[in-house]
Amino acid sequence: MGTSAAFHETRVRVRYGEVDRMGVVHHRHYLSYFEQGRTEMLRDLGASYRDVEDSGTLLVVAETGVRFVRPAGYEDDLTIATRLTEARGVRVRFEYELRRDGVLLATGFTVLVSCDANGRPKRPPPELVALFRGLHRKDDGATDVQEAAT
Amino acid sequence: MGTSAAFHETRVRVRYGEVDRMGVVHHRHYLSYFEQGRTEMLRDLGASYRDVEDSGTLLVVAETGVRFVRPAGYEDDLTIATRLTEARGVRVRFEYELRRDGVLLATGFTVLVSCDANGRPKRPPPELVALFRGLHRKDDGATDVQEAAT
Amino acid sequence: MGTSAAFHETRVRVRYGEVDRMGVVHHRHYLSYFEQGRTEMLRDLGASYRDVEDSGTLLVVAETGVRFVRPAGYEDDLTIATRLTEARGVRVRFEYELRRDGVLLATGFTVLVSCDANGRPKRPPPELVALFRGLHRKDDGATDVQEAAT
Amino acid sequence: MGTSAAFHETRVRVRYGEVDRMGVVHHRHYLSYFEQGRTEMLRDLGASYRDVEDSGTLLVVAETGVRFVRPAGYEDDLTIATRLTEARGVRVRFEYELRRDGVLLATGFTVLVSCDANGRPKRPPPELVALFRGLHRKDDGATDVQEAAT
Repeated sequence: MGTSAAFHETRVRVRYGEVDRMGVVHHRHYLSYFEQGRTEMLRDLGASYRDVEDSGTLLVVAETGVRFVRPAGYEDDLTIATRLTEARGVRVRFEYELRRDGVLLATGFTVLVSCDANGRPKRPPPELVALFRGLHRKDDGATDVQEAAT
Repeated sequence: MGTSAAFHETRVRVRYGEVDRMGVVHHRHYLSYFEQGRTEMLRDLGASYRDVEDSGTLLVVAETGVRFVRPAGYEDDLTIATRLTEARGVRVRFEYELRRDGVLLATGFTVLVSCDANGRPKRPPPELVALFRGLHRKDDGATDVQEAAT
Repeated sequence: MGTSAAFHETRVRVRYGEVDRMGVVHHRHYLSYFEQGRTEMLRDLGASYRDVEDSGTLLVVAETGVRFVRPAGYEDDLTIATRLTEARGVRVRFEYELRRDGVLLATGFTVLVSCDANGRPKRPPPELVALFRGLHRKDDGATDVQEAAT
Repeated sequence: MGTSAAFHETRVRVRYGEVDRMGVVHHRHYLSYFEQGRTEMLRDLGASYRDVEDSGTLLVVAETGVRFVRPAGYEDDLTIATRLTEARGVRVRFEYELRRDGVLLATGFTVLVSCDANGRPKRPPPELVALFRGLHRKDDGATDVQEAAT
């Protein structure tokens, strides 16, 4: 797991319907915030995940985890910091930090597996591999970027 | 709009994440409850909406409306009463009543349009037409069941 | 129903998890988009709905309706146009138009009732009444703004 | 972490709006399924989580993780197997296995922290401690059930 890869930041405003009866964001929505973080990161790099998927490559979530540090509330203006920390064969790992006014609210990660339209693992297209590798090379001394076949 | 068509009933338990910071079910979830009502009604009649869709007929929501009478809360055991009140060409109309212990919480309706996989209106397959007509014939004196072409 | 009240516009990007197996935004999410439209309108006018609620006034959804004209898809950049078309006693009515690149995708409305923390109707606080009236006065010749007691 | 604690099983039918454009259940909904698993387990033991919360004890999600093995689809009839594997001071850990027709689709866990209404950690009420301990004692030779103060 890289520790110095550059973070991409995007912002999200908590919606009314995302807050539960405790008055805080229900934990399932953090997965949507993270998803928004990684798709905005790709979009800012010129890659629409919609286009990736429509051209036959699905990035399927294989594993995820979240640690909740402090609650988020309605109308909070959150910053999602996203970075790619691993791109190896068919696997890509993203890590996230969620903050409000600089205060850490949660951390998390997602491991995605590149699949074909039938859900079978397959190498992502070259342009996506190049993009992932570019993201990851920002991480000094990273050793886990490989072109290992699946 | 028929008024005596038979209601089909299904039950749903309110989930934690469906309740908002007021402590009541967020209004968008009523649309999911209604959807569950009509798909359970079809399933009890032997028609899986999944199969309908997988065989190339989409029932697309064209219009919906809800009146909220009393709030629903966490863990409430709700009864969704669903009936088909119109089936005319490509259009089908369902109406709903949501209750807790017999007390009315909400009423609503959905108008669906039968479409092909590209979203263009097309007549539903004969078995679905027959099923809709059967549902509707339970409504004494109904006059709005027609075989009007689209 | 006023027809010339000024529209407030806000934008929303469709999230991955909001799109269903037809490949279009699931209809329940339009209610969240509309909610975002009216809260952003209030925020731009200096009123945080969070503060309104925290000070003891709940704006409870009493009725809603949506007409779906054209589908919205993943990553679509949508514009929510919101206007207040009625503010009468404890009732407030908002109307919405959802567009993508100027093309109308859906229209809808929400009727909200001002309630106290126990869910009983009560007049909204004066500053909110003033704000609603200001919004509505933009509607030439409106006649439905009244100070009718509940 | 215990490995032999008894699993409680509950069932959930996948709703239309939970399936994404890949045609599979969007990953955030697994967190709702797990939540349903643990609340149904408590309910079957005579403890309503609604009552727990209304009497001033919040069980706040502090950490969660999910491994997705095989996708779930629309209308799938899923079985959520839930067990309590740790109850120590203010912390409770639940583990989950999600299956369709006996085939494993996903595993996951949730760590919850007992808090007061202000979100500060506090010991759960005695009846809840007793219930958790009873659940856990089903795990032969468990050693991690303690009454350690917070």
